Amino acid sequence: MWLSRQLSIAAKPRGFHLITDEVSNALPEIRQLKVGVLHVFIQHTSASLTINENADPSVRHDLEQHFNRSVPENAPYYQHMDEGSDDMPAHIKASTLGASQSIPIANGQLQLGLWQGLYLCEHRNYATNRTLVLTLNGE
Amino acid sequence: MWLSRQLSIAAKPRGFHLITDEVSNALPEIRQLKVGVLHVFIQHTSASLTINENADPSVRHDLEQHFNRSVPENAPYYQHMDEGSDDMPAHIKASTLGASQSIPIANGQLQLGLWQGLYLCEHRNYATNRTLVLTLNGE
Amino acid sequence: MWLSRQLSIAAKPRGFHLITDEVSNALPEIRQLKVGVLHVFIQHTSASLTINENADPSVRHDLEQHFNRSVPENAPYYQHMDEGSDDMPAHIKASTLGASQSIPIANGQLQLGLWQGLYLCEHRNYATNRTLVLTLNGE
Repeated sequence: MWLSRQLSIAAKPRGFHLITDEVSNALPEIRQLKVGVLHVFIQHTSASLTINENADPSVRHDLEQHFNRSVPENAPYYQHMDEGSDDMPAHIKASTLGASQSIPIANGQLQLGLWQGLYLCEHRNYATNRTLVLTLNGE
Repeated sequence: MWLSRQLSIAAKPRGFHLITDEVSNALPEIRQLKVGVLHVFIQHTSASLTINENADPSVRHDLEQHFNRSVPENAPYYQHMDEGSDDMPAHIKASTLGASQSIPIANGQLQLGLWQGLYLCEHRNYATNRTLVLTLNGE
Repeated sequence: MWLSRQLSIAAKPRGFHLITDEVSNALPEIRQLKVGVLHVFIQHTSASLTINENADPSVRHDLEQHFNRSVPENAPYYQHMDEGSDDMPAHIKASTLGASQSIPIANGQLQLGLWQGLYLCEHRNYATNRTLVLTLNGE
């Protein structure tokens, strides 16, 4: 089975957000697969995808705090400043965290660990909807 | 061919560890594939997978030293502190390095470069076994 | 369809370089796929692949500036120094950015966002050619 589906995620505040359920609900076909891989791709360069803890929201808070410090705004060596002080840091965070995640499937279920969830990482202060491309492949 | 297999990696000390042989030995079916991709996924949020140099162990030492400095312990802005001072840094390192790696296969062999190996990156001080999900797909 | 092809990218100066066209031109077969995934893998540990902005070259300049600061040369705790002061930082950047990118395909086209491009990130001062393994899978 091959399947490609776009999923629009409503605009979110800057920060890290759990989207595991939203993505898996958009793909009921996962249940039909004995083995496979789900590829999730974000079509933007100032937001990203990662996998991290699905329980305590303080992990998401701390990730945001960490990356705000390790990727500074208004660094004196930035040339790409026209779209606001959060824009170039957003690009750097996007490359650090990545534009896609691949999640294995077995026995009709995503094989995430017990504590793992998929995050949308919104790096802009005022974002619009974000488009994901979901590609499901398996048998 | 589609194949999904769990592989348990015995507990390792904090740091970067080569696991290329352990993973490929768990999948003799790689030899049957003319073309394909091996997806390796770690079901944890405080350990990660990366690809880096397979020869000089000092590369693994220096990676550990670098990430210990770029991701501080006990940062004053952390809220997620209950599981120890190495826990939140472990989550940040896991997202920075990533939960999965995909390695191409051709002519029955992983197409790693001459100097490339797969690493398990253990970010906790006292870890237990780590579970990998190996998904092999090809023809 | 399964297809594996090596692509040699001519030596580039240290920095971030757009290679979307070079990669897609090497794979005219993309046009035949209704759904699929392109996996691009770099067989080196001191260069990497990422996806970021395809328009303003200042984004590429700033990425280089950022990673040069967040990954120092000649750090006192490095042991891996024999191949020059740019070598260990190159390994760290390679693991931070990643050895591969997977790009979804639908209706015969890579499903990159309007502003997304594939980058080769060259982390060495004096690099040689870089070999990519392109794996195309779809139907």
